[in-house]
Amino acid sequence: MQRDVTQESSFSLKARDGEARTGEIVTPRGVVRTPAFMPVGTGATVKAMFPEDVRASGADIILANTYHLMLRPGAERIAKAGGLHRFMHWEGPILTDSGGYQVMSLAKLRRIREDGVTFQSHIDGATLALSPERAIEVQCLLGADIQMVLDECTPFPATREEAQTSMELSLRWAARSKQAFGKLAAPGQALFGIVQGSIYGDLRERSAKALIDIGFDGYAIGGLAVGEGQDAMLDTVSATAAVLPQDRPRYLMGVGTPVDILAAITRGVDMFDCVMPTRSGRHCQAFTWGGRLNLRNARYAEDVSPLDPESACPAAQYSRAYLHHLVKSGEMLGAMLLSYANVQFYQELMARARAAIANGEFAAFAEDVRRRYRDMGDIEDG
Amino acid sequence: MQRDVTQESSFSLKARDGEARTGEIVTPRGVVRTPAFMPVGTGATVKAMFPEDVRASGADIILANTYHLMLRPGAERIAKAGGLHRFMHWEGPILTDSGGYQVMSLAKLRRIREDGVTFQSHIDGATLALSPERAIEVQCLLGADIQMVLDECTPFPATREEAQTSMELSLRWAARSKQAFGKLAAPGQALFGIVQGSIYGDLRERSAKALIDIGFDGYAIGGLAVGEGQDAMLDTVSATAAVLPQDRPRYLMGVGTPVDILAAITRGVDMFDCVMPTRSGRHCQAFTWGGRLNLRNARYAEDVSPLDPESACPAAQYSRAYLHHLVKSGEMLGAMLLSYANVQFYQELMARARAAIANGEFAAFAEDVRRRYRDMGDIEDG
Repeated sequence: MQRDVTQESSFSLKARDGEARTGEIVTPRGVVRTPAFMPVGTGATVKAMFPEDVRASGADIILANTYHLMLRPGAERIAKAGGLHRFMHWEGPILTDSGGYQVMSLAKLRRIREDGVTFQSHIDGATLALSPERAIEVQCLLGADIQMVLDECTPFPATREEAQTSMELSLRWAARSKQAFGKLAAPGQALFGIVQGSIYGDLRERSAKALIDIGFDGYAIGGLAVGEGQDAMLDTVSATAAVLPQDRPRYLMGVGTPVDILAAITRGVDMFDCVMPTRSGRHCQAFTWGGRLNLRNARYAEDVSPLDPESACPAAQYSRAYLHHLVKSGEMLGAMLLSYANVQFYQELMARARAAIANGEFAAFAEDVRRRYRDMGDIEDG
Repeated sequence: MQRDVTQESSFSLKARDGEARTGEIVTPRGVVRTPAFMPVGTGATVKAMFPEDVRASGADIILANTYHLMLRPGAERIAKAGGLHRFMHWEGPILTDSGGYQVMSLAKLRRIREDGVTFQSHIDGATLALSPERAIEVQCLLGADIQMVLDECTPFPATREEAQTSMELSLRWAARSKQAFGKLAAPGQALFGIVQGSIYGDLRERSAKALIDIGFDGYAIGGLAVGEGQDAMLDTVSATAAVLPQDRPRYLMGVGTPVDILAAITRGVDMFDCVMPTRSGRHCQAFTWGGRLNLRNARYAEDVSPLDPESACPAAQYSRAYLHHLVKSGEMLGAMLLSYANVQFYQELMARARAAIANGEFAAFAEDVRRRYRDMGDIEDG
């Protein structure tokens, strides 16, 4: 992909259908069509996929994890190698998280203070520190096009008081993140704030408004999909989106299933990331236009039909019988093909969502997908 | 690849350089340029590689294992799915072994009788039988373009008497294999005999002559690379090749390192197979034009040079630092890239060997590769 001539990032809306929106984030490394799904490239690789295939699947942008990369191989080492894009052969835009979420979920002996968080690496036990300033420094060393403020992902459940204390700490960290970003970032790089406040609508509103006062290029909704359930998640998304400015992209972090993504698009969200397509691909699960399939199931042993005849993905043209054979045999090619097919399914889902919004048919489209996943998906689950 | 119009298989020599030969095996599914290296697609997959990339690496033909496929998913099941080519998305020629070697090396409770061999599956313990007739039936069910007679791969070491008894059993099985092949094979399919006789030159000669009397489309040299050492292997290859007809392809089974392959080409061998490029790729080892590298070695952590600047393989353009990171992190992409780069290195080796033979420069080429592997390869080994 050619590097775009622009040195600025911008967001423009092309169409709306109810609260659902379609538009474009323009970055120096290329255009991100929204609603966008970002495959997760945790440790500088979208697991079990060649970067060319991630691109061919339709992905405009990928996500990489600051926590994983600062531990291994190290941000300074990636910077020496010419930055993350060059290191991993991905020329398009990259969004990096701040590392906060994985510090909470993976690291050992965490200690959170006003200044930041210290923790032990889950790989070798080394003691490391992450502050709002260091999180930005690391993301700049990686060369991330869209960077995230360091926040505390409030655990669920949280009392109102816990949620408020945590949210206010995240706000102070957001302000410090923005200040560090102003000093370190290259032209065209963008910084997103992250709304917290657990499932308390008024706390979410206060968090969003305070972030808007600080001023960010986009706004993420964090601290969801952590056990609160779908209804609480979607209510919180609605309450938050209502406060966010129309002219900035909105990013629901860590979500999710095809049905959850469409429900969030209905409520005005523009960006998503989730390990589900790749993790499922390594665990014999396929997302298809006919629903979710478990390829370990013996019913596929002699099913010579393609994995997903409705998909344009090369990997989805392999027969279910062959994929069944591969996953039963523990062959790496099974994980490779299912990861590719799943990532492309998510991209096709977003492409159809964008077209449906542009045509004013999003509600019918979302209902159609819900029906496909209700009819076939649950049978195969687990 | 288009299916060739011919319905016959044939072999023609294009050039010789000493005993080294270059030519073409023409099959209904395409041309195999010799000397040829066949990547091993054990269980209907060249491990960790998309079939498109196996083809793009320069491979004209792959090998698949009858033993593995008859156990899982079963030959009848593959036949129902339209044959092995369609099942695994490989349209070029496929050579299948007879299953004999894996029965000896993998199966449990083997019992060899005149009629054939019974054994227990190493996967689920099921009792199975393999006779010369069943081995051909299975290979025809798979739709293999080049099939192998069932033989007993004589264990090493073997006394002269053991080697002779075993070789004579293999000869009787070869005659029965040819008879079964005559009844079952489709037009254009070919059957190769397998010379046995351990490291006893006169037994090898008797085996070869008896097989020639039966008459096969090509002749394999079996029972080598089983611990006899390089000198004994090459002496046996020389003694056997001297007896084999010039107008039939010669196939050294299960060999080997780049240096061993070139030494065998020097002695008149046309075809090879080995798991080395793919197995090494899954174990952090790379074959390059600069020698063999172990990517786990910390010396590569900040080496931003390409894996192999002399290779045209896309996978060999990734930096050593990135590959080091991937293999240290246990990422599947590491095995994917190294398998691809290794398979393509073997194909580039064969392409250069063919060109060198055509130009009368094979000895100098082989010496150059030996030097590269002596200078760099051994340091990294193990």
